[in-house]
Amino acid sequence: MEKNILLTIEYDGSGFSGWQRQPGRRTVQGVLEEALCKILRQPVELQGTSRTDAGVHALGQRATLRGNFGIPTARLPLTVNHILAGQRGGLSKIGRVGDVRILAAEEKAADFHARFSARGKLYRYVISTAETPDIFRRNYCYQVGRPLDIAAMRQAAACLQGTHDFCCFQAAGGQPRATTVRTIARLAVLQQGEDIVLEVAGDGFLYHMVRILTGTLVEVGLGRRSPAEMPEILAGRDRSLAGHTAPAAGLYLAEVYYEEMGKGDAKDGKTGLG
Amino acid sequence: MEKNILLTIEYDGSGFSGWQRQPGRRTVQGVLEEALCKILRQPVELQGTSRTDAGVHALGQRATLRGNFGIPTARLPLTVNHILAGQRGGLSKIGRVGDVRILAAEEKAADFHARFSARGKLYRYVISTAETPDIFRRNYCYQVGRPLDIAAMRQAAACLQGTHDFCCFQAAGGQPRATTVRTIARLAVLQQGEDIVLEVAGDGFLYHMVRILTGTLVEVGLGRRSPAEMPEILAGRDRSLAGHTAPAAGLYLAEVYYEEMGKGDAKDGKTGLG
Repeated sequence: MEKNILLTIEYDGSGFSGWQRQPGRRTVQGVLEEALCKILRQPVELQGTSRTDAGVHALGQRATLRGNFGIPTARLPLTVNHILAGQRGGLSKIGRVGDVRILAAEEKAADFHARFSARGKLYRYVISTAETPDIFRRNYCYQVGRPLDIAAMRQAAACLQGTHDFCCFQAAGGQPRATTVRTIARLAVLQQGEDIVLEVAGDGFLYHMVRILTGTLVEVGLGRRSPAEMPEILAGRDRSLAGHTAPAAGLYLAEVYYEEMGKGDAKDGKTGLG
Repeated sequence: MEKNILLTIEYDGSGFSGWQRQPGRRTVQGVLEEALCKILRQPVELQGTSRTDAGVHALGQRATLRGNFGIPTARLPLTVNHILAGQRGGLSKIGRVGDVRILAAEEKAADFHARFSARGKLYRYVISTAETPDIFRRNYCYQVGRPLDIAAMRQAAACLQGTHDFCCFQAAGGQPRATTVRTIARLAVLQQGEDIVLEVAGDGFLYHMVRILTGTLVEVGLGRRSPAEMPEILAGRDRSLAGHTAPAAGLYLAEVYYEEMGKGDAKDGKTGLG
């Protein structure tokens, strides 16, 4: 019987040319499909939830694969992760970890689809305000190198929360969409030591939307823009009115919400969309 | 007049094939020499203190360069770091940082040599005992995935401190040395949350010595060896008696001590060799 398996996937995006399979490039989809193919002894094709860009990370990307697989679904993560980490026996296997791994695998109904069944997503964006950039974090956060006015950023974020036409926060080059109206259920600006972490939960995101939102909020934090501009930017429906595109390195796809998960059961109740 | 400039250099070793210039490979020395060459408009050759391996990091590598340079020495770090970070103007320059940078530059006497004038070095080795490996730290620590017996490790470390023939802690392939006797002034085993950090200060180190010391201490921490074996290993003078070579990813060249710095003035007084 054909199985429809939903995978939860974590990756460090710094060594990948993004999620989507491309000839001659190392991509997350490509590396995973190759490893799955070895285990399942058949060609596999993953349907991912989000086509993350080069350098973007994931803590909870999702993808489905369909087929008749002999291996028990529960054994899939460990077996595939061994291949992904290039593990061998003995002491040399201690601490071997790849830059992508499968966190969970579960069987879903035949009509479940990783992307089309998704009800929303949570992205996290990490900004460091430390004065001296940390070379060891260069792939993992946006190092703005100076303090940001977090109160102003929160004010601006409040204007952007809710249902709006976000076409001004969309980069050229994405897939054409029927509408550019989206709902941001939550846009939180959190202080964590010298880091500022944005948490953006919404029903869907346009191309580069989280990174342009972040760039705009950073400019507010630097005092180059005022929170009062936000309604104008939204109303202007013009990309050039919004801020710069923050780098890929700070962005994490944290969680994907499905219909059956939507009823307020998201972790800690703060990240849900309901 | 010819200047003799001592540079202090920091790098994330994960993207480099080690320190030493090699044709067709991206090395720290190669990348630095290329950037310096652009600024100084003449070929330069760096003399590094330590030829760190591929994947090994540095917080305070040192290197000297000699020549008649028009640019004031104090301006060298900022100028070179701009090139190393690929910085451009405007907002796109915010947060740009390369994986190597110059922390300081100072002029020294003509007879000063980055390596031969060094009196000792401090290495730091970071081990994570977290049960689940963290893919975002895979290039920055040794993830052993289980708790280690830190008391046993400290007992073993105490046996290794001092002046010994460390030839059993030397890998094949290094440069031939007149003697394999070295002095470890301090071998501290520090607990930092779920991390265990080794600090090893000594007058000189054999090829892979810190990594083999670490591998041996990890095996003690896992209960596979007893601290009581340490004197036997040292006395045996045979590489096969010591433990495995811990991965490069956890190793940091933290500091280099020079004669004029040796008189107990190292930071916090604990890392010095005197």
